[in-house]
Amino acid sequence: MATIRGFELAASGGALAAARREIGVLEPEDVLIRVAGCGVCHTDLGFLHDGVRTRHALPLILGHEVSGYVEDAGSRHRELVDRAVVVPAVLPCGECALCRSGRPTICAAQIMPGNDRDGGFATHVVLPGRFLCPVPGAGPDPDAPLGKAPGLTLRHLAVVADAVSTAYQAVERSGLRSGELAVVVGLGGVGTFAAEVAAERGAAVVGLDVDPRRREAALKVGVRVALDPREISGKELRARIAAFARESGAPATGWTILECSGTPAGQQSAFGLLVHGATLMVVGFTLETVSLRLSNLMAFDARALGNWGCAPELYPEILEKVLAGRIEVASHAELRPLSKIAEVLDDVRARWVGRRVVLVPEAATEEVV
Amino acid sequence: MATIRGFELAASGGALAAARREIGVLEPEDVLIRVAGCGVCHTDLGFLHDGVRTRHALPLILGHEVSGYVEDAGSRHRELVDRAVVVPAVLPCGECALCRSGRPTICAAQIMPGNDRDGGFATHVVLPGRFLCPVPGAGPDPDAPLGKAPGLTLRHLAVVADAVSTAYQAVERSGLRSGELAVVVGLGGVGTFAAEVAAERGAAVVGLDVDPRRREAALKVGVRVALDPREISGKELRARIAAFARESGAPATGWTILECSGTPAGQQSAFGLLVHGATLMVVGFTLETVSLRLSNLMAFDARALGNWGCAPELYPEILEKVLAGRIEVASHAELRPLSKIAEVLDDVRARWVGRRVVLVPEAATEEVV
Repeated sequence: MATIRGFELAASGGALAAARREIGVLEPEDVLIRVAGCGVCHTDLGFLHDGVRTRHALPLILGHEVSGYVEDAGSRHRELVDRAVVVPAVLPCGECALCRSGRPTICAAQIMPGNDRDGGFATHVVLPGRFLCPVPGAGPDPDAPLGKAPGLTLRHLAVVADAVSTAYQAVERSGLRSGELAVVVGLGGVGTFAAEVAAERGAAVVGLDVDPRRREAALKVGVRVALDPREISGKELRARIAAFARESGAPATGWTILECSGTPAGQQSAFGLLVHGATLMVVGFTLETVSLRLSNLMAFDARALGNWGCAPELYPEILEKVLAGRIEVASHAELRPLSKIAEVLDDVRARWVGRRVVLVPEAATEEVV
Repeated sequence: MATIRGFELAASGGALAAARREIGVLEPEDVLIRVAGCGVCHTDLGFLHDGVRTRHALPLILGHEVSGYVEDAGSRHRELVDRAVVVPAVLPCGECALCRSGRPTICAAQIMPGNDRDGGFATHVVLPGRFLCPVPGAGPDPDAPLGKAPGLTLRHLAVVADAVSTAYQAVERSGLRSGELAVVVGLGGVGTFAAEVAAERGAAVVGLDVDPRRREAALKVGVRVALDPREISGKELRARIAAFARESGAPATGWTILECSGTPAGQQSAFGLLVHGATLMVVGFTLETVSLRLSNLMAFDARALGNWGCAPELYPEILEKVLAGRIEVASHAELRPLSKIAEVLDDVRARWVGRRVVLVPEAATEEVV
């Protein structure tokens, strides 16, 4: 028996409210995770404010970007007890035809915390143990330094659960290679990581964002040119990027464009950058429509690939790169107390926050809730 | 020395006019082809009426869907003289980085007849010999029966140059497998061949077209259900197709949608049929924009792939299937005299024509022009 304290959404358009859940005996395939950190994602804001529906009926504890410790486990996963883990944001069944054919992120039986089940804006979360990714070298202190990356702790690794891994799979799926050009549209959480992952592969990376602070931050993690798409757009933007490609020795064709803004304006900019053989990765989400000349995909022999989540099998290599400091995470994540969730969500919504916020269920929270 | 008689476009928005070209000594890499047939494509109408610009300056003889006989050849291609050939609509250079990396259809040095050079609405055409596809078993008579397919002649094979091969590469690139569901939007020339190619692979094929004659014709070549997207659309259309998938034992996910109409309405319908893991092939072209929720690609982990032309390396296998009667061509192609080109183009523009028209430069033409 355990008591979970967290914050649930009771109705879209409402606010999160303190909630408790009493946990009985775990199912054989489930584990109880003590949350070390849970990242805040724009998907959460979508549920909260924009009428995006959770797959599980409300009320539901939100939060799908979790790192933590396995505190208890059902019979199938006893070996995980006391392990520090990152929880993939999409937990597939591993058994169905889609899982077996390499499409686990669209498994119909998938569990996404904070969408299909109670999530990580809480002290604990109960989830299937099958695809949890153990963190090599992590001890019992969630605030202890980890790996070779300065300032990195288990709490920061929460952002690997979704923001880093989604960016990673998007770049992986695009087939981006060293020496090629990548353009990242939207330098928020996922976008900044996408830029880092692209740079880590040896690509020449251009970043686009309307926020000067984000552009400046991106220049420190591998973005070579950061532009404001409100100041330079359309053909001029394209010409500017083509000039950068020439200077960097990158080809004039086959650009990889990573749309991470999840805004109609960002999608328009991204689509407008198609060149012959280009790959547009659609990573950000918006319910809004955009007006596009779809036939440009044909005329340029180009492609637009959606990316939902990240296959669990990619997490170990992502974690390895993060722990080695090849993908920088700590400086892009900001730890805030879970008890301040209402304030944090308002900040994130207003886009005041330059870094990905990770909510930490400190002792104080447990008393407040 | 030879004289080419054909029909050239002098200015967009104008009409084609009779033209002559005197041909001198061939370049070493070029060949002179006596046209057996040249198919009429909506791309030609785009050049003629819709302001789409040819890459070569006007005046230019249009037509890019050519079969014929090599009558003379430069020093590098003497072995082709007297061979019957199909001319790939996109003739890449074969040397550049894109060609060497498997992207020949976006080769910057590509030659498309009737776009980069004078094309096939003529008695003869001069083109690079490098990637011409010889027709096995073809004798000197362009009207003699060919292969095992009833009514098939070298003239009909003109449509393999673009309509059949573009459809073929689109299906190939989609990765469609036996037992899966394919939806073809727009059952015109390319669409009908796409449906045939998909059916030949063992897919369960649904066809959409507003024209009842086209729907009826498609049912004879492998389309199992043909629907009118003006009568049944949106969620109802999706539900109807999902029901057909269930009845046929095809999966509910991973549909292949082949947009061949090149119309905004068709593109809307096609995009609206995205399911999890779907592949939308953008095969048809229109200059118009459409309003889409691009993020559905992300939400469904789906993709939209443009397709321009067909790699020359695929032509031998396509020709083999056509000659074996596994892809039916003759009954979808209609031979008309080249001298009637003005009338034919009007008919095609009005979409009165149920079949792909192949213009034949009969003896009479040569006198008229």
